[in-house]
Amino acid sequence: MIIIGEKINATRKAIAAALEARDAAHIRKIAVQQAQAGATHIDVNGGDPRPGREAENMAWLMEVVQGATDLPVAVDTADPQAAKVGLAAAKAKPILNSVSLEAHRLEKMLPIAAERDCMVIALLMSDGGTPCGVDDRLRSAEALLGKLAGAGKKLDEIIVDPCFLPVSAEASSGRMVIDAIARIRANWPDVHIGGGLSNISFGLPQRKVVNLAAVAQCIYAGMDAAIVDPCVPGMVGMMLAAEAVAGRDEFCMNYVMAGREGKLV
Amino acid sequence: MIIIGEKINATRKAIAAALEARDAAHIRKIAVQQAQAGATHIDVNGGDPRPGREAENMAWLMEVVQGATDLPVAVDTADPQAAKVGLAAAKAKPILNSVSLEAHRLEKMLPIAAERDCMVIALLMSDGGTPCGVDDRLRSAEALLGKLAGAGKKLDEIIVDPCFLPVSAEASSGRMVIDAIARIRANWPDVHIGGGLSNISFGLPQRKVVNLAAVAQCIYAGMDAAIVDPCVPGMVGMMLAAEAVAGRDEFCMNYVMAGREGKLV
Repeated sequence: MIIIGEKINATRKAIAAALEARDAAHIRKIAVQQAQAGATHIDVNGGDPRPGREAENMAWLMEVVQGATDLPVAVDTADPQAAKVGLAAAKAKPILNSVSLEAHRLEKMLPIAAERDCMVIALLMSDGGTPCGVDDRLRSAEALLGKLAGAGKKLDEIIVDPCFLPVSAEASSGRMVIDAIARIRANWPDVHIGGGLSNISFGLPQRKVVNLAAVAQCIYAGMDAAIVDPCVPGMVGMMLAAEAVAGRDEFCMNYVMAGREGKLV
Repeated sequence: MIIIGEKINATRKAIAAALEARDAAHIRKIAVQQAQAGATHIDVNGGDPRPGREAENMAWLMEVVQGATDLPVAVDTADPQAAKVGLAAAKAKPILNSVSLEAHRLEKMLPIAAERDCMVIALLMSDGGTPCGVDDRLRSAEALLGKLAGAGKKLDEIIVDPCFLPVSAEASSGRMVIDAIARIRANWPDVHIGGGLSNISFGLPQRKVVNLAAVAQCIYAGMDAAIVDPCVPGMVGMMLAAEAVAGRDEFCMNYVMAGREGKLV
């Protein structure tokens, strides 16, 4: 399971403040907490509305995060310069977060994904907007995987993000994305599948409960990656338990080991 | 969702003691706690190794439980006399727990299921033992549903229990039962599906986490009934969240209502 810790993101107030103040101790603490909770990758997002600042933020964040942990990072940006800076500063094979079929994003990000030794999140968004059904997700996946293959990416270097949408807005949107995961898994057994699934619970009370249910169901369908807050109690345990119940953890070894390390609760 | 509260069961030490002492206050408290936590039915099991005692226990338990709550009960016994006593004392349409394809059980319980206005749990066990795969579960379901139809039971009066087995013993046993649930749901859209799923986590640490993952995944596949401890924090919330994500809760009404009633945590 690829577990990308989502907390170091400048859209979060505390991170924005730490970034502005160049408070390395705070960023380090958040990186280490996520690693200890069970993250396999640390997302790094230094978004900034001021022109030219994002690459600078990314350089500083990468130095701090990779000084705190040897875990690989997910370089989370739509800014090509920040992407290059982030990927170049990575200690272990990083993830580029993300490319999509949106023309402006594809054009800027595909060459970067091509020239670096990195994994890449392939978000199934296009200029037509967000996919809503199963078939349009399959069509987008086929198109985007084709582009990435053309850029030299192997299937196991790609994480397809099927676009998670709120069930509060449309009751079928959970089932659509989960069925799409199952179809993508069947069509491309070697690709990774996952993304920022907490969008599913938008607008509902006790969002954590909905996110945990969605994680378990998506993993059953074939999801093997997620961008989540691994420090939420029960989240990492739910992912490992879901893999065990789904038959993807021989002798429940990962689950039992995580229990010994105190990561299940 | 049919949520059968499993706690009033004489295999539990505290219940056996309360039963022996005819401690009605304790039994009432457990019944009310389960009702408040979100149970839709209360399981009642007065099992006793001493011959002839079970029917007497059942009569006493039923009087206490139905004095404490108007919820329907699940009459949980393999003793025909206890079953008759329990069903006769029910206030609302009860569940008979259970019939199976085991000859001795079928012979004794099918006539009781036939003559009473009750639902019935159809456990997919046979004299050949526990089913392990998907196809043998389907064959058993077909045979047992045939017997129950012959006894005049409608599909929506039947809860098929697909036999949950520990994943610690065999990694594929979770996927087998969940795939079987999906096939049963596809073949018989009107039947209820569910049972005592905590067996899945037998032998593992933090069993609650595994049970929650299994609940979410089984509900995605089509489970709509469960025999659980509804007082375990998060269990009822997980079931309602799982139904919402699976697209079976229009506008997330049940989930949101449960939130207002404090049942999600």
